[in-house]
Amino acid sequence: MSGIKAGIIGASGYTGSELVRLLTLHPEVSLEVITSESKAGEKFSALHPQFTGLAEMKLQKMETIGDHELDIVFLALPHGVSMNFVKEQGIDRFKVIDLSGDFRLPSTGIYEKWYKKEHIAPGEIQNAAYGLPELFREEIKKADLVANPGCYPTSAILPLAPLLKYGLIEEKGIITDSKSGVTGAGAKVKAKTHFPEVFGNFSAYGLLQHRHTPEIEHSLSKFCGQQIEVLFTPHLLPIDRGILTTTYSTPKSSVNGDTLHKALGDLYGKEPFVRVLQTPPSVKNVRGSNYSDVFVTYDPRNNKVLTVSALDNLVKGAAGQAIQNMNLMFGLEEATGIRQLPLSP
Amino acid sequence: MSGIKAGIIGASGYTGSELVRLLTLHPEVSLEVITSESKAGEKFSALHPQFTGLAEMKLQKMETIGDHELDIVFLALPHGVSMNFVKEQGIDRFKVIDLSGDFRLPSTGIYEKWYKKEHIAPGEIQNAAYGLPELFREEIKKADLVANPGCYPTSAILPLAPLLKYGLIEEKGIITDSKSGVTGAGAKVKAKTHFPEVFGNFSAYGLLQHRHTPEIEHSLSKFCGQQIEVLFTPHLLPIDRGILTTTYSTPKSSVNGDTLHKALGDLYGKEPFVRVLQTPPSVKNVRGSNYSDVFVTYDPRNNKVLTVSALDNLVKGAAGQAIQNMNLMFGLEEATGIRQLPLSP
Amino acid sequence: MSGIKAGIIGASGYTGSELVRLLTLHPEVSLEVITSESKAGEKFSALHPQFTGLAEMKLQKMETIGDHELDIVFLALPHGVSMNFVKEQGIDRFKVIDLSGDFRLPSTGIYEKWYKKEHIAPGEIQNAAYGLPELFREEIKKADLVANPGCYPTSAILPLAPLLKYGLIEEKGIITDSKSGVTGAGAKVKAKTHFPEVFGNFSAYGLLQHRHTPEIEHSLSKFCGQQIEVLFTPHLLPIDRGILTTTYSTPKSSVNGDTLHKALGDLYGKEPFVRVLQTPPSVKNVRGSNYSDVFVTYDPRNNKVLTVSALDNLVKGAAGQAIQNMNLMFGLEEATGIRQLPLSP
Amino acid sequence: MSGIKAGIIGASGYTGSELVRLLTLHPEVSLEVITSESKAGEKFSALHPQFTGLAEMKLQKMETIGDHELDIVFLALPHGVSMNFVKEQGIDRFKVIDLSGDFRLPSTGIYEKWYKKEHIAPGEIQNAAYGLPELFREEIKKADLVANPGCYPTSAILPLAPLLKYGLIEEKGIITDSKSGVTGAGAKVKAKTHFPEVFGNFSAYGLLQHRHTPEIEHSLSKFCGQQIEVLFTPHLLPIDRGILTTTYSTPKSSVNGDTLHKALGDLYGKEPFVRVLQTPPSVKNVRGSNYSDVFVTYDPRNNKVLTVSALDNLVKGAAGQAIQNMNLMFGLEEATGIRQLPLSP
Repeated sequence: MSGIKAGIIGASGYTGSELVRLLTLHPEVSLEVITSESKAGEKFSALHPQFTGLAEMKLQKMETIGDHELDIVFLALPHGVSMNFVKEQGIDRFKVIDLSGDFRLPSTGIYEKWYKKEHIAPGEIQNAAYGLPELFREEIKKADLVANPGCYPTSAILPLAPLLKYGLIEEKGIITDSKSGVTGAGAKVKAKTHFPEVFGNFSAYGLLQHRHTPEIEHSLSKFCGQQIEVLFTPHLLPIDRGILTTTYSTPKSSVNGDTLHKALGDLYGKEPFVRVLQTPPSVKNVRGSNYSDVFVTYDPRNNKVLTVSALDNLVKGAAGQAIQNMNLMFGLEEATGIRQLPLSP
Repeated sequence: MSGIKAGIIGASGYTGSELVRLLTLHPEVSLEVITSESKAGEKFSALHPQFTGLAEMKLQKMETIGDHELDIVFLALPHGVSMNFVKEQGIDRFKVIDLSGDFRLPSTGIYEKWYKKEHIAPGEIQNAAYGLPELFREEIKKADLVANPGCYPTSAILPLAPLLKYGLIEEKGIITDSKSGVTGAGAKVKAKTHFPEVFGNFSAYGLLQHRHTPEIEHSLSKFCGQQIEVLFTPHLLPIDRGILTTTYSTPKSSVNGDTLHKALGDLYGKEPFVRVLQTPPSVKNVRGSNYSDVFVTYDPRNNKVLTVSALDNLVKGAAGQAIQNMNLMFGLEEATGIRQLPLSP
Repeated sequence: MSGIKAGIIGASGYTGSELVRLLTLHPEVSLEVITSESKAGEKFSALHPQFTGLAEMKLQKMETIGDHELDIVFLALPHGVSMNFVKEQGIDRFKVIDLSGDFRLPSTGIYEKWYKKEHIAPGEIQNAAYGLPELFREEIKKADLVANPGCYPTSAILPLAPLLKYGLIEEKGIITDSKSGVTGAGAKVKAKTHFPEVFGNFSAYGLLQHRHTPEIEHSLSKFCGQQIEVLFTPHLLPIDRGILTTTYSTPKSSVNGDTLHKALGDLYGKEPFVRVLQTPPSVKNVRGSNYSDVFVTYDPRNNKVLTVSALDNLVKGAAGQAIQNMNLMFGLEEATGIRQLPLSP
Repeated sequence: MSGIKAGIIGASGYTGSELVRLLTLHPEVSLEVITSESKAGEKFSALHPQFTGLAEMKLQKMETIGDHELDIVFLALPHGVSMNFVKEQGIDRFKVIDLSGDFRLPSTGIYEKWYKKEHIAPGEIQNAAYGLPELFREEIKKADLVANPGCYPTSAILPLAPLLKYGLIEEKGIITDSKSGVTGAGAKVKAKTHFPEVFGNFSAYGLLQHRHTPEIEHSLSKFCGQQIEVLFTPHLLPIDRGILTTTYSTPKSSVNGDTLHKALGDLYGKEPFVRVLQTPPSVKNVRGSNYSDVFVTYDPRNNKVLTVSALDNLVKGAAGQAIQNMNLMFGLEEATGIRQLPLSP
């Protein structure tokens, strides 16, 4: 029997199924319980038939987790629901990795401004570690509650963090033009994600008011010790998985492609899951994997710094990063169970 | 027999086939000859089987056009080849609409810098009209040689022109983040456009050096009477048709969403093919049609102006716009033959 | 003002929007009223934004059609609802083309067996013409009520009809393996047609019990004067539009590729919308058009006849064919308003 | 250092890259050398950038394999080239798994009829084991040369084998209607697999003469001890990976869904990679994995047996199955290194 006993709360969606995909073969984890309030009693593989014969558990009511001795709980719940769980269950009996937005922002005030909802766990929002290992590894190791980053923020923060940290670009007016596959919008059916509406299509959405904006700003600000401001524009790609983010910023001083590339290499050279590329990345080169590719260049004509980054929104942008965090929290080798190579073509 | 006798030079590619699709039903045009040096002698429908029974002409050698009395010739040739045709054939016997990049720039010097090729028709490059009817309609009406705009430039210029013309945004540092379907890369097979490489994928390419950059800058500069500078980043969408362009610029003075929207309305309110939208456009809403949708908004947090525009790269971005220009050059009602409604879903 | 006054009942779905796309430019039709019970009062273009500025009517309640003098009404309603309309409104004041399954079968008994629902308009189901012009043109011309064929049946019947009519294949055990794009499943969101579920996917569904089975059998039987039996298997293609159907049958006597091809040519040689091909068709060669491509060959190894056919399920499989029927019913040239060439690539 | 030393001959294509994806993490294999005649000297990750930082070997000339002590060689070569390798290198120094069609057929005569090419290794073609473990496991364990099955044949043979073995269906006139993603056509660019040609498209190809026909027939015949005849029709799906095969056959005696389902269960109940489903499979439920899903039902109306099966053509249809064979040949647990769960959505 493997050592770490885990539960997944809210396993009916894509984040939940991706956690099951990765945890099933994780050599140090035993998946004890998976829950879904609306689908309790059903076989997990009835909902996610790719797991037929491979993960034949039944979904339980959340209340049943008291029957299990758990070391860690993954919350794959909608925002607003995760904080209820944390408030009710606490974080003493097991560690918690929350994949919603509930604990990513620094204060209830900022949360309430962007999420239009009262935050009911003010103590925990202040103490949660932001689960981006490349920037906050030591905090994560010690944390009992980790706020797993959003998919867009991970793709925006990774290329920008070294440039800001080393003072190479201006802190204001950073343009972040992101493009995401449709799984980022979740498993719930909507008119906007009906197949005929998305197939052969492409569009921008959530202009100027997407909730990932303050998350990007806050996490970069915290890491760099400066107040960062970004304009974030998401677009919907007609693919299932993958985010590509293109950013535009203004250099602070004299830079060129080499100095910029070196800055990324300096921060990420030893990282197991960030690849600093010499050419622009593409989303299929990371599909199904926990790798994130980053690239930077300089445009002397317009005096702008341009970055491009790619990741799989369900892996490095969600479930894979959550397991990377778990590995850190339990003292395992950081890449345990998430070394799958990209599935391409 | 319809009045205007037309020829298409280089009908083996996608621009050529799209011209045939639209001209076949154009009530005032008789398509007299279509050519392809490499496929001469073959039936057009053998190459483009969608036309079986509908456009059963044979492809000819270019030299045979002397056998026809033509009123207009569409050049669907690669850049560098179009100028040879113009130099050899002149523009006296028939009007010419060139769909390559050979006559879009204002001078041989700029052409040679970006296209890395000597320009052999210096007189014509200076006299060609830039075929964007919404900005240069009167010049087009009088022209014998029209340089049909690039697909990316059309999508970038349309939303930016009114903002620059009315002095609402800064002329420098305009970010133009464009995403195009694969037909924009042409019918010629390449590793980059092999189906398994593009399917489920998304990437940036041609960073900082795409030839459409000076075309956008020059045409906006000419229309606005100011020197405009843009940073243009193309991306490859995993769809067949459609371009969506998102631009970011800095307002010159106090603006808001309404003043910006009004600027677009003022310039395009009576245009038959530009739709000024209240919500961000999507490429499928213009698929197969000559319509271009434009949208503008203002971000007070970052003090930036953001536009989004959409068009079908083979229609408003190529063949449809060419026919719109032809209609103007021959005094026809501008929308003749290109009123097809968007094909969605 | 154009001559034929038309209404569309149930214009909120894909069949409705495709009728609007085609009727808007139909030179002999004036679209007087479009209805939707659930969306009454809304602008049509709010629901189908591709029509912004092009078809700016409001959706009405069905009851308002009494305010209009209509020559024809298109019913783009779910099955079970169309018969209510016909029962209540009759077919005296206007001709009716029903795009649902309610009037395609020969009797209430067969309808009730496959649709699991009582049929409330028994007189009309017996008198309705089956709207496949290539087989039943004369009946359609005289009809007041036309049952517009299903998309799958059109694609299966067209290649099989001549082979059966001319006695070339056995009447029993015909395998019909069909593959359809997702618009065939309608505009209503469902888990099965959520984008991430369909993208990169392919599957069979509705095995052995799809309602188009008796429609194919009955219409072929009626046309050929023999009792025909087919096994029909639908599959879901990860595209928006298009059906490709492959059939397998047993020759009755000595046949070869030429005799089979000639049979198709004999029946369809003068048809405006059926193209008998020398090579297997593909769905993109008919996209957006009313054309249907058919192909036949013979396998001497297994002594089987194989056909492949393609059409656009929303055009020849629905709205385009409905307009073709309307043209016949009103004595217009059959191709009026539906000559759009295929949109490819 | 892992125990089994492996080489891949012809690693520039998709089969080669998929072998590298799977072997890189295989716990018992050390990948010693990868070759490509045309790309020798280049970094593997320059050709397949998804492997950047993960598989940083250089491609070698084939002749260099003499420098390595190898236990096994995977031939990811075109047919016609594999037999040259086997003839020149023999199968004494290392075991060989050939992923081409060169050793799948029972005799040079049948090979030459379908492949239109002389076979130069007649001894080996007779002695090679057909690498479908579910049917020929014991032969594979003892073999020095394994002919890895084609992707289509694997998908057709798996559902049909138990039905034929247990005498449930007729041996003649089996219809096999298959649909494959584009990676099945290889990495080499062609007009037929240019992205704009395939996107939104679907078509049949290779009618009546596809080389997988005799492979299906021969392997089923050998397994069942009867002469089997199939009509095989491939179609091209607009996706990257996945094959779905629908078969139609005639029952020999009284059957029903349960007896048919039981037959599949009897043969495959203990198989690690075949899942016998209660509902029709879909290709995305096996994406990226070595699993194959099979389903069977009975149509009493037409007295036909219908099967549907799904697999990933690059995994169970090629590289994954090759590793499954290698595991058997070296006495490893059969699923070693290929337990990856399906990547869905």
